[in-house]
Amino acid sequence: MTWASVPPGSDFPVENLPYGVFSADGRAPRVGVAIGDHILDLAPVLDEPVFAEPTLNRFLGQGRRRWQQIRNHVTDLLTDPAHRPVVQPHLLPQASVTMHMPFEVADYVDFYASVDHATNLGRIFRPDQEPLTPNWRWLPIGYHGRAGTVVASGTPVTRPCGQCKRTLEAAPAFGPSERLDIEAELGFVVGMPSELGKPVPIDRFRDHVFGVVLVNDWSARDMQAWEYVPLGPFLGKSFATSVSPWVIPLDALDAAMVTPPPQQPQPLPYLRDPDVWGLDIELEVRLNGHVVSRPPYRAMYWTPAQMLAHMTVNGASLRTGDLFASGTISGPDRTQRGSFIELSWNGAEPFDLADGTTRTFLQDGDHVAIAARAPARNGVSIGFGEVTGAVSPAQLDPRVRG
Amino acid sequence: MTWASVPPGSDFPVENLPYGVFSADGRAPRVGVAIGDHILDLAPVLDEPVFAEPTLNRFLGQGRRRWQQIRNHVTDLLTDPAHRPVVQPHLLPQASVTMHMPFEVADYVDFYASVDHATNLGRIFRPDQEPLTPNWRWLPIGYHGRAGTVVASGTPVTRPCGQCKRTLEAAPAFGPSERLDIEAELGFVVGMPSELGKPVPIDRFRDHVFGVVLVNDWSARDMQAWEYVPLGPFLGKSFATSVSPWVIPLDALDAAMVTPPPQQPQPLPYLRDPDVWGLDIELEVRLNGHVVSRPPYRAMYWTPAQMLAHMTVNGASLRTGDLFASGTISGPDRTQRGSFIELSWNGAEPFDLADGTTRTFLQDGDHVAIAARAPARNGVSIGFGEVTGAVSPAQLDPRVRG
Repeated sequence: MTWASVPPGSDFPVENLPYGVFSADGRAPRVGVAIGDHILDLAPVLDEPVFAEPTLNRFLGQGRRRWQQIRNHVTDLLTDPAHRPVVQPHLLPQASVTMHMPFEVADYVDFYASVDHATNLGRIFRPDQEPLTPNWRWLPIGYHGRAGTVVASGTPVTRPCGQCKRTLEAAPAFGPSERLDIEAELGFVVGMPSELGKPVPIDRFRDHVFGVVLVNDWSARDMQAWEYVPLGPFLGKSFATSVSPWVIPLDALDAAMVTPPPQQPQPLPYLRDPDVWGLDIELEVRLNGHVVSRPPYRAMYWTPAQMLAHMTVNGASLRTGDLFASGTISGPDRTQRGSFIELSWNGAEPFDLADGTTRTFLQDGDHVAIAARAPARNGVSIGFGEVTGAVSPAQLDPRVRG
Repeated sequence: MTWASVPPGSDFPVENLPYGVFSADGRAPRVGVAIGDHILDLAPVLDEPVFAEPTLNRFLGQGRRRWQQIRNHVTDLLTDPAHRPVVQPHLLPQASVTMHMPFEVADYVDFYASVDHATNLGRIFRPDQEPLTPNWRWLPIGYHGRAGTVVASGTPVTRPCGQCKRTLEAAPAFGPSERLDIEAELGFVVGMPSELGKPVPIDRFRDHVFGVVLVNDWSARDMQAWEYVPLGPFLGKSFATSVSPWVIPLDALDAAMVTPPPQQPQPLPYLRDPDVWGLDIELEVRLNGHVVSRPPYRAMYWTPAQMLAHMTVNGASLRTGDLFASGTISGPDRTQRGSFIELSWNGAEPFDLADGTTRTFLQDGDHVAIAARAPARNGVSIGFGEVTGAVSPAQLDPRVRG
């Protein structure tokens, strides 16, 4: 029980305590922890310089023992009423602060870990083939994305221009994407680096990964379809990837750990996990305020621990700030699909919004919000805040003629 | 003419003046410029703090006017004998210093710009299909690689382990790559950043790109073949990418600019270049001291200016330290192929070394060096130094069982 005021149903009870970077009163960005509708300004309370930094990176690099120590300390400060007089002056209303990118992204990797999403996309993009490629159930497929265009929640997303080729036309044309989409994902934030040439064993997941953010991997499906063979997605993804302002510590998700779906064939030994890193996290995708989907993370085929073990098994090193995302989260039901290309079956089946309009892909001005909730300790549930973004019209630069 | 001593045939006459980061005498790494067999310690000579930094990034971010100013100043210092008494004490023998990564890599993108390489790989990986995918002549295909594993020349490369599937076997197996390869490339280093949502027009190439490095994009072909459909190369490439210690300024390459090969179909307007960014640079690939290939950059289909325009046409922003590489450089002749998979036709045709041995792919202990030369002003030619690396045996971590 916290002495701080936490409204019923808040995303941020004391069992959560996610970290973010905020600014207020014209001062430089610094680290805070969410509690109810407030944010705790950590630097003056803990007197630790890492929390006066404009990103979480230095704290993330300090490792798991330190993460636990600080979490225990902050929990104590917010539960023992004796600390109230000292702490309360440093609780600022979240409504009064500006949130920033919580960490500086080192490398960004995006996986493809939902069997329902991969099956749907395979059917749409390669209708004449088996929807899952032969490697899909053997390894978590992933690729590197553009770290430099991972942006803070709320950053407007300009509709990208590029080459697309319509099926019946012989040549591609240049113009704004007509199939702008979202991907509702979770992202895993690496704190502790690893050495080049040394794989991270699957049971060391918790030593390296600090926490979880919401990710919206904006996607231009028409550009992606034209460019992605043979080297994978590039401009169809690299214009923007939004992340939520709050990083939920893995330590807040213990009660959300569930057995992942059965894997057949049995994975190779380096992908066999002694722990259960399925996560009972339900996302919610809202378009202009209307819920369009509720993707369940617990349906994901590959776990984040498997992704990390795979990503490093060749000796690739980790850096503090590495972000690896799950890929679109989709469940087996139509109402659980985490992208518009699946919800509208590549535009063939427009879906309804509660305001009476329909959508296939995003329109200019559309506002997307992705949220999530998970069970936590003490029988409460916690939330992830939101990752949001609105679509701005394409800017046709006269210096860049199509 | 420089007053400094430059041996005949040196890579580093005064027309070159590439930048690197070195350390000597136990002091911290700092910026230097190569001249002959020496390196000029810039910080004490120019009294500019950016050259006392351990990477080139701050200097790179200062922009083209500043790059030219410093280049002119250094040229003057090394040509006017009046400066000799002040400058000479800061010329250190290259043999006495340690070279480091010249810049901190922001995002790393690898293109696929050689028509001969792409055709060869298409024939090898997809023998039943047209070697070039339908998009290949319309856009420079590229993908993001792992920035965190771009390493300094000389860093040992540990043979990676991972999943591979042999053609006739039903399931993949775990083990060391048996098809470890090189890719001889040029890399282009971004100095001036760009704004999110604002494409960089093709004629602004020189404003953003500072210079050129040699790149060896080590590749595990067996892992790559199994993993790359549908999202592109991942672990087959992410274990190591080596870059040369010297960044050759674009300003040193004016005399190497040549008309690129004709492009058919005509590219879309955003890819039409008023300048000619073909580059008459010849690479040399040496294995254990024996030349195995001389890939000609002038044969590349897509120019670096086209790569940059394409990479940003969707509004993706640039950061100082972004590195984009050409992809393997191969010419039409067999002796011009920039990878072992092409030289040995995927292992089917072993090639001879001058020491009487043969190779298909890399063996443990093999030492690879890639060098390059280009015509420069005043009728001289300049070199790029070398990017080197030797193969260490796979490390089978007992905690990471196959």
